[in-house]
Amino acid sequence: MTTLAIQDRYDPEFQHCYGCGARNPQGLQIKSFPDGDEVVADFELRPEQLGVPGVVYGGLIASLMDCHGIATGAAFFQARDGLETPPRCVTASLTVNYRQPTPMDAKTVHLRSRVVESSERKAVVTVEFSAGDAITAEGQVIAVKLPDSMQT
Amino acid sequence: MTTLAIQDRYDPEFQHCYGCGARNPQGLQIKSFPDGDEVVADFELRPEQLGVPGVVYGGLIASLMDCHGIATGAAFFQARDGLETPPRCVTASLTVNYRQPTPMDAKTVHLRSRVVESSERKAVVTVEFSAGDAITAEGQVIAVKLPDSMQT
Repeated sequence: MTTLAIQDRYDPEFQHCYGCGARNPQGLQIKSFPDGDEVVADFELRPEQLGVPGVVYGGLIASLMDCHGIATGAAFFQARDGLETPPRCVTASLTVNYRQPTPMDAKTVHLRSRVVESSERKAVVTVEFSAGDAITAEGQVIAVKLPDSMQT
Repeated sequence: MTTLAIQDRYDPEFQHCYGCGARNPQGLQIKSFPDGDEVVADFELRPEQLGVPGVVYGGLIASLMDCHGIATGAAFFQARDGLETPPRCVTASLTVNYRQPTPMDAKTVHLRSRVVESSERKAVVTVEFSAGDAITAEGQVIAVKLPDSMQT
């Protein structure tokens, strides 16, 4: 079991993503880790990441779900197909249902996800987004493996 | 007809959003303008806003659709209800379908949206996202008016 985030195990060429690339210093740098059959991430909010006063920006929640869901799909494909590194996936679709406001006061937010359906190149991932004890948003990400010819 | 963006006509208290607040210097500062029954926006990409190499980050596309869709709902409610300013709305749900990669080379991306369904407090908005001549993503935003008691 490695302690390196899934995103930090992508091929270096794919570590420039604004949401999760270690090589993108201006980016969000989200890092996701396997936890049994699920994948988890914690993210520390920056003061400017609000929407309406006191509430976390919905576009940030969507961005975190995107990269976290893609990492979840990548880790799933890596395990299923016995690959050395998580294959880089891209987003076919993203859906976020905002159940209640996520308070900026939470300071840290959490994501927990799992693959609920898959085919050769596609994984359907559900994501729970929470602050404290409350699940404040739920999402679905459809992750599609980049063609092998593009995997480096 | 005003040339001020819809977001710049929100009550000043609501101009701190990371996606579209003029008073958030670290934010994306997206600005949307009415165009007949539709609402349009142009956004200049920053070099760090990529996902996989050469391709615009999907979370950015989701963020732009979020604020643009909310502005579309706000402008709709303002006109329908004869209000002095666009009422601040929040996102109940956001769905993005990524049809093809959006190239970073495009430099500027475009959004065009319309309200397709509405009730007293809710507007369903569809958003087309394009680069050059290609529609690269399509989205739906469900915008809900903040209660009147929270509108300042």
